[in-house]
Amino acid sequence: MSERVKEFVIEGRNAVIEAFRAGKTIDKVYILDGCQDGPVMTVRREAAKRDVQIKYVTRERLDQLSETGRHQGVIAQAAAYEYATVEDMLQSARDKGEAPFLFLLDNIEDPHNLGAIIRTANLAGAHGVIIPKNRAVGLTATVARTSAGALNYTPVAKVTNLSKTIEELKKEGLWFVCADMDGTVMYSLDLKGPIGLVIGSEGEGVGRLVKEKCDMTAAIPMKGDIDSLNASVAAGVLAYEIVRQRLQG
Amino acid sequence: MSERVKEFVIEGRNAVIEAFRAGKTIDKVYILDGCQDGPVMTVRREAAKRDVQIKYVTRERLDQLSETGRHQGVIAQAAAYEYATVEDMLQSARDKGEAPFLFLLDNIEDPHNLGAIIRTANLAGAHGVIIPKNRAVGLTATVARTSAGALNYTPVAKVTNLSKTIEELKKEGLWFVCADMDGTVMYSLDLKGPIGLVIGSEGEGVGRLVKEKCDMTAAIPMKGDIDSLNASVAAGVLAYEIVRQRLQG
Repeated sequence: MSERVKEFVIEGRNAVIEAFRAGKTIDKVYILDGCQDGPVMTVRREAAKRDVQIKYVTRERLDQLSETGRHQGVIAQAAAYEYATVEDMLQSARDKGEAPFLFLLDNIEDPHNLGAIIRTANLAGAHGVIIPKNRAVGLTATVARTSAGALNYTPVAKVTNLSKTIEELKKEGLWFVCADMDGTVMYSLDLKGPIGLVIGSEGEGVGRLVKEKCDMTAAIPMKGDIDSLNASVAAGVLAYEIVRQRLQG
Repeated sequence: MSERVKEFVIEGRNAVIEAFRAGKTIDKVYILDGCQDGPVMTVRREAAKRDVQIKYVTRERLDQLSETGRHQGVIAQAAAYEYATVEDMLQSARDKGEAPFLFLLDNIEDPHNLGAIIRTANLAGAHGVIIPKNRAVGLTATVARTSAGALNYTPVAKVTNLSKTIEELKKEGLWFVCADMDGTVMYSLDLKGPIGLVIGSEGEGVGRLVKEKCDMTAAIPMKGDIDSLNASVAAGVLAYEIVRQRLQG
């Protein structure tokens, strides 16, 4: 499968500042050692705000990294993520001769959780991860890092309306199961066949409108004293119950 | 075997609320001046109920006190954590009339993973979490926060030598299963009865000496393109396979 994350460099002070302000995914910034003028200080502030690593390097190193030869002492290493479509995911399932298995994330805003869930989706053999356009965290450097490379393989699609996407996918034969404490214990549900696993955030869970569209509500049995599992752990536990049932054929 | 860590801070609204509700000894609460949303009001009520002093401070002061940088406007200064002993855990299993179920963590050094695993141990109904003295991360504010309160309920013991602890627990009738990609698919193993689940780090896995002491090696089936699940997700998936088998009786 082709890599979905393309690395490129952004050169020059204003170009890098612009990139930060436009919300581009920047992995690392190289700054000429000793350089402290106004625009460079702005670059440093923007990088610090977003937990982006700064490396202070020699002019020779910058020249090596530069593609244009006009870096003005600042080069950012950026990544562009190519979003997939839901149709891409269905096609990938068809190509593999498998029943579609999709993750749908409602309200997941923590980039560490998003990255870990994409990682889990990859290893559980899911065909893609669908996130809503409006509230979702973007595919930032943190997401890419915590996905441990999975973002290069597992397609992610952004959709305008998660409920509408569920309705459309039902026409393709998918069943939808959402995670909720009030549901049926997951071991008692039939989770084989074409399926969409809907995961909500730790605080809010799956939104009401989305939940109403789901065919089943699955609960992870909980014996303890606290409320809920970490969102990415819960996603993993549910995904692997689906994997277990699928392996039984 | 029990020891004490120095005073630590609990950061974040939910972690502080959980700590209050679990009856933890909290000395003082710092709240961002002017912050009045729902969870903050809950913190104020819980503090008032217990005559705990509240200090309203600036963001700069909170940032200074913070160890994680993610205090969400609320930091509690809590009493030191008292480690449990392995015997405490066995006794807790006896008291509940359950077969012992323990987590043993080898090489887990990331506090987010440690916290998430303690959280999972709590909800999966495990009787305790055992970590090695030498390399393990301590029970820091980050661990407390990511455990979402579970640290207040689930005992954690520190031991000098994990292999030796395994040997001793075998005499108590426990079986040990360690997580490793090269193992038997977990669904084919018998994971009922008194059990110790041994989890290693993402990079290094379970150490050789510890692995040799284990009775079984369990693999999570992996279909994807990357190497491994996040350590806390892997722990969750394995723990819930144990839960599933236990529920079958």
